[in-house]
Amino acid sequence: MLAAERTSVNVAVIGHSFMGKIHTQAWRTAPRFFDLGVEPQLSVVCGRDMKATESFAAEHGFGRAESDWRAVIDDPEIDIIDICAPGHLHATIAIAALNAGKHVLCEKPLANSLDEATQMAAAAAAARVSGVRSMVGYSYRRTPALAYAHQLIDEGRIGTIRHIRAEYLQDWIVDEDFPLVWRLERDKAGSGALGDIGAHIIDLAQYISGHRIAGLSALTETFVKSRPLPGSSSGLHATGGDGRGDVTVDDSAIVIARTDQGALATFEATRFAAGRKNAMRIEINGSRGSLAFDFEQLNELWFHDHTAPAAEAGFRRILVTEPEHPYAGAWWPAGHGLGYDHTFVHEIADFVRDIAAGRDPKPSFDDGLQVQRILDAVERSAASNAGWVTVQAEQ
Amino acid sequence: MLAAERTSVNVAVIGHSFMGKIHTQAWRTAPRFFDLGVEPQLSVVCGRDMKATESFAAEHGFGRAESDWRAVIDDPEIDIIDICAPGHLHATIAIAALNAGKHVLCEKPLANSLDEATQMAAAAAAARVSGVRSMVGYSYRRTPALAYAHQLIDEGRIGTIRHIRAEYLQDWIVDEDFPLVWRLERDKAGSGALGDIGAHIIDLAQYISGHRIAGLSALTETFVKSRPLPGSSSGLHATGGDGRGDVTVDDSAIVIARTDQGALATFEATRFAAGRKNAMRIEINGSRGSLAFDFEQLNELWFHDHTAPAAEAGFRRILVTEPEHPYAGAWWPAGHGLGYDHTFVHEIADFVRDIAAGRDPKPSFDDGLQVQRILDAVERSAASNAGWVTVQAEQ
Amino acid sequence: MLAAERTSVNVAVIGHSFMGKIHTQAWRTAPRFFDLGVEPQLSVVCGRDMKATESFAAEHGFGRAESDWRAVIDDPEIDIIDICAPGHLHATIAIAALNAGKHVLCEKPLANSLDEATQMAAAAAAARVSGVRSMVGYSYRRTPALAYAHQLIDEGRIGTIRHIRAEYLQDWIVDEDFPLVWRLERDKAGSGALGDIGAHIIDLAQYISGHRIAGLSALTETFVKSRPLPGSSSGLHATGGDGRGDVTVDDSAIVIARTDQGALATFEATRFAAGRKNAMRIEINGSRGSLAFDFEQLNELWFHDHTAPAAEAGFRRILVTEPEHPYAGAWWPAGHGLGYDHTFVHEIADFVRDIAAGRDPKPSFDDGLQVQRILDAVERSAASNAGWVTVQAEQ
Amino acid sequence: MLAAERTSVNVAVIGHSFMGKIHTQAWRTAPRFFDLGVEPQLSVVCGRDMKATESFAAEHGFGRAESDWRAVIDDPEIDIIDICAPGHLHATIAIAALNAGKHVLCEKPLANSLDEATQMAAAAAAARVSGVRSMVGYSYRRTPALAYAHQLIDEGRIGTIRHIRAEYLQDWIVDEDFPLVWRLERDKAGSGALGDIGAHIIDLAQYISGHRIAGLSALTETFVKSRPLPGSSSGLHATGGDGRGDVTVDDSAIVIARTDQGALATFEATRFAAGRKNAMRIEINGSRGSLAFDFEQLNELWFHDHTAPAAEAGFRRILVTEPEHPYAGAWWPAGHGLGYDHTFVHEIADFVRDIAAGRDPKPSFDDGLQVQRILDAVERSAASNAGWVTVQAEQ
Repeated sequence: MLAAERTSVNVAVIGHSFMGKIHTQAWRTAPRFFDLGVEPQLSVVCGRDMKATESFAAEHGFGRAESDWRAVIDDPEIDIIDICAPGHLHATIAIAALNAGKHVLCEKPLANSLDEATQMAAAAAAARVSGVRSMVGYSYRRTPALAYAHQLIDEGRIGTIRHIRAEYLQDWIVDEDFPLVWRLERDKAGSGALGDIGAHIIDLAQYISGHRIAGLSALTETFVKSRPLPGSSSGLHATGGDGRGDVTVDDSAIVIARTDQGALATFEATRFAAGRKNAMRIEINGSRGSLAFDFEQLNELWFHDHTAPAAEAGFRRILVTEPEHPYAGAWWPAGHGLGYDHTFVHEIADFVRDIAAGRDPKPSFDDGLQVQRILDAVERSAASNAGWVTVQAEQ
Repeated sequence: MLAAERTSVNVAVIGHSFMGKIHTQAWRTAPRFFDLGVEPQLSVVCGRDMKATESFAAEHGFGRAESDWRAVIDDPEIDIIDICAPGHLHATIAIAALNAGKHVLCEKPLANSLDEATQMAAAAAAARVSGVRSMVGYSYRRTPALAYAHQLIDEGRIGTIRHIRAEYLQDWIVDEDFPLVWRLERDKAGSGALGDIGAHIIDLAQYISGHRIAGLSALTETFVKSRPLPGSSSGLHATGGDGRGDVTVDDSAIVIARTDQGALATFEATRFAAGRKNAMRIEINGSRGSLAFDFEQLNELWFHDHTAPAAEAGFRRILVTEPEHPYAGAWWPAGHGLGYDHTFVHEIADFVRDIAAGRDPKPSFDDGLQVQRILDAVERSAASNAGWVTVQAEQ
Repeated sequence: MLAAERTSVNVAVIGHSFMGKIHTQAWRTAPRFFDLGVEPQLSVVCGRDMKATESFAAEHGFGRAESDWRAVIDDPEIDIIDICAPGHLHATIAIAALNAGKHVLCEKPLANSLDEATQMAAAAAAARVSGVRSMVGYSYRRTPALAYAHQLIDEGRIGTIRHIRAEYLQDWIVDEDFPLVWRLERDKAGSGALGDIGAHIIDLAQYISGHRIAGLSALTETFVKSRPLPGSSSGLHATGGDGRGDVTVDDSAIVIARTDQGALATFEATRFAAGRKNAMRIEINGSRGSLAFDFEQLNELWFHDHTAPAAEAGFRRILVTEPEHPYAGAWWPAGHGLGYDHTFVHEIADFVRDIAAGRDPKPSFDDGLQVQRILDAVERSAASNAGWVTVQAEQ
Repeated sequence: MLAAERTSVNVAVIGHSFMGKIHTQAWRTAPRFFDLGVEPQLSVVCGRDMKATESFAAEHGFGRAESDWRAVIDDPEIDIIDICAPGHLHATIAIAALNAGKHVLCEKPLANSLDEATQMAAAAAAARVSGVRSMVGYSYRRTPALAYAHQLIDEGRIGTIRHIRAEYLQDWIVDEDFPLVWRLERDKAGSGALGDIGAHIIDLAQYISGHRIAGLSALTETFVKSRPLPGSSSGLHATGGDGRGDVTVDDSAIVIARTDQGALATFEATRFAAGRKNAMRIEINGSRGSLAFDFEQLNELWFHDHTAPAAEAGFRRILVTEPEHPYAGAWWPAGHGLGYDHTFVHEIADFVRDIAAGRDPKPSFDDGLQVQRILDAVERSAASNAGWVTVQAEQ
């Protein structure tokens, strides 16, 4: 918890691969473009391989490297734990950190199972009483175009929502010889495309629309059942090593759903859409208008105003780079687009501002748990050959 | 049946609203741009309202107008019956025509129920023995871009298909006061978005991919339960009259499916996608490439060649207007796009050429029946809250 | 001239290659979709090669074929002469036809030289006195999207125009071995890309904007100086024969200009834009909005309303297929796009309706002459190494 | 000059508005993602208003603030001078810095006049002898898509270049009441759209194509002759204050040109293209292919391979985010796009690596001078009503 007089906060980043690196860049950049109230210090980075961690610490200007995350949590100097480790470690680290009074930012999905997520939300609730803050890293909410989509719907510009159509398409494992990286192993990743990218569109669809998924029917598939064991990997790229192993997660998931407010929704998450690199797409159709977005063109939001005269109506391409748009005013002039990493800067900025202001940040662990309930429902439906599963409403 | 020495064929068109009009334009145009072997004559047009039918006959150069379709079938001069009447009339007319030895082109969906479709396919099979031909009007197959998509997959350019993603989005009934036209009444239209536009993407997805849907789970919804009774209507436009009535068909249908060859498929058909006018979209992802199409840009096929080096790979926008492309060579120079109606010209051309050559045209009534089985499965699944329904394979 | 009691008009089409064929299709189709007041009859088609002409006449249902255009003009039964012959024949045929009291539709550009065009406009003016009508075939004006662009500007939606940016990009002669077809010979075609496609964007830019080009500076280039003599050709496709000849027209022309109302304009016409098939593009920027169009997506007009709040402004893609849009209501439901040939149907419909109503159709031969003045200015500027040439205002 | 044993370099940034801020972010970020050989230190930031400068220094972590750039140059601790001040200060500062043995990165355009640019290039040449490096900030060269465009042309994939078509469209002064910020004053900015954004497309067109502009004809225009004096401004946004003043620079410039290798080129730079925010577009057409780019979708390069079979050829949208693409491998997985500021990170990284390696960075002051010759030719041509101006080749 942050004392009122504090002007800086000490941050520990757990994990330093793809997510750890982009979080670090965000921690470094956020205070330069946003007024945070306090100045984050990159105090510790933590990783299993001490040599690699030390090298990362040096490259990125951390105060020190650690290989034991427990030591980090025990360090009284640390205020914030930023969990960028694989999903199977989320629950243990987050709960320990919250219990130790550290503010926690945890990458998504919140956990690898509904049980873990439930425990985490409980720990967050307990810690909240003492002013300890927690947040789950559904960073896409803070892409300016998607934050603006949320705002337009909130202002009633779309009217009654009829359809939500979301897909997250990647292609990095189309090649059958792409190796068995940790993201393809259930014990580490929890699930495959579902939890990795499907979780994003489920969170986003609900966040933007204000609807909650009430029930669903789903199929999942693992197209390539075994793969070469990995040699080295970084980000989503990897090279093969010796031997083979079983793929224990889904390659793809497709879902049809009803929302609590009467809309129909479809979701698809796949790593087998050849040619689609990071096509996180969402379209929402309502009685007064529609919105469409594709992350491959992340600075654009398409808006159809159905109240305009028919002759001049059409989807308009809004470049979400005006000072009036969420977050955009902190950056460059109109039309000078932002990238993937800026979204994380926004996330860190909001997280720190909320901590400094004594507010609970969003999305909360409860929000993360609610997504987890849907991921769980998807898996249960898929296991029963697309049987209908009602999603339990929050209490 | 067509005697070898015949140089012309006499055509009767049953129905003269949207489909009747565009078929007529196709009958008139096809022999000018394609070598058909025989010359079609616009002999009779048939409609319930004799005055309107006579006016249409005069405008479009038919030999005569009729108000009784049975009289048309009884006319020994007529060779071809082109059924453009609403769905609830398809079975009776088509079976009578086939039994009378007339070649039949029947608009899609083949029928309003699986029973009717089954009887129609049986009648077509019986008539086929005597050289009587039949075809169902899934005209989009002959959009050059989609015919070319089929060809590319047939040539193996997409490899093993993993995903089929099809949606047909319209918005002509988003307005809650849009009147209750015949397309919104179950007894005339059979179903709503499902049979009207969903049928197209189901046929297309199977045609292009060569896969068959093996089982599915579906939801349907009628967002607006009652509407004003109609005043006058034309095409998809209408004005309201007095009183109200219940909407008895689906406004939207969403489907997840597995194919017989192991792909996952999603389908969505809706008339509530504000701003989408005729967005019939299909994307297919395979191990060697992907294809994407949107009818709102009907002259374009997007092709991703996944075998190209990663640095230079990407979806390419092929303008399907080259002489090498299906049907395109009969028309204008490259880049001078075709419209919606050209697809019907291709359909008529192929139908007549097949008749002249003594071949069975495609899609056959059996193909139409197979789509009907899927429409039926969708309705059964939707009725059981998205329960899984296995689609019966053809015999 | 058309007597009031006439219910049909007899049409002679001179030329039956690309333009002759598409005009014929338009003559056939226009009366079916538009109320013309009179019914056009395809009386005569005329071509040099009698055998090919007879074959075309049979295929397209003309009353008869002719090889001598003078005989056609002398035929008292003929009411309308539709000139689809190469440019070097326009003046002689059109003047003879007008003098003989025939209504004339002449393909663009009006003539191969300013002199010829001036004589043609004079003949049209003289004939107009006796009610004889004339029109030049700048058909793109009647593409619904471009007619709607004209309307939006006319209604003041774009405000004070600052920029006109037009380009017409093709690529059919990029291959250095593409043969020397008539369009590459000055004595037949008058000029190259300039008159063939540049003329279109000059006419369109002025028509849509209401501005006139006041002065300009231009460059032209012939990248490939000699080519194989042609074997056979059709449309823009051809195969090579024996021998070689000099290309005597421009391959490309680029122009900067000022308009009479203070806007800046750029024009580019080229047949060397590899991958651009028929990219006739125009963008207009004004103080209150902007418009953009690309013929490769001919059913779309992009409109930016600069008076909208900045946060929600953007170019909107209008599908110009609503009943409210010019010409679109005569065809199919919204979103069911039109093709290149529909534009000619609109042209013929308006031409015949104007004749029937006793009105002078637009674009007139005077309009054609004004474009010719600009083409002439481009050639003179290019000949003087981009020297500034003032365009003479009409009298 | 950098001693071999140095592990860090001390950087002074002169100016801290739009360019100063983005350079600072790039200095901070470059060493974290690229191996630079040495570690840049943000030693000094310099600005006229000491209070604002100190505040910027604190916000961005500079060692100190200065208000006198001469003091910065006199500081023996400073290794690198990064000039982000307005154009009228470039020459004085750069020459003084070079003479003092500092490496210089100077924002573009190199200078406000050809004379100044010539002197700067001479100073750079003199300093180069002693190992002092200089670079001009045409940062767009290092947008991955444009660097890859350069590479494809360099590899011969486009063949003989026929057309270069470049435009840089903005709209931030469409409103006639937008105030008279320094970018609209000749004595500070040198020119208007021409030098600010036209310079970018001239540099890029030549860099990517390998062609040099040999001669040109141009028009410029100032649509709005006077504007309110500015209140406060930041980036390209400003609010009006009291009084009015004359706009002394061009609002727009349009150019036609020939290159030294026989291509035709067109350029347009404008701040009056309503709805275009930062549409820096370039298309290059050659005998073997074409390339197209629009900065509003900065992660995409469109490539048409004209050697592919006609039926499957088309512009392909390459997401330039693969590890194989220039600079992209240092960042995120494929499809996770970069923003405007990443380009500056690449610029700084290359600049520092070249300094560390003892190489002359590109674009050099000579390159900047060559662009200046073209800007000068544009202004001379425009002053003579689009008279042809030959561009002097470098010596």
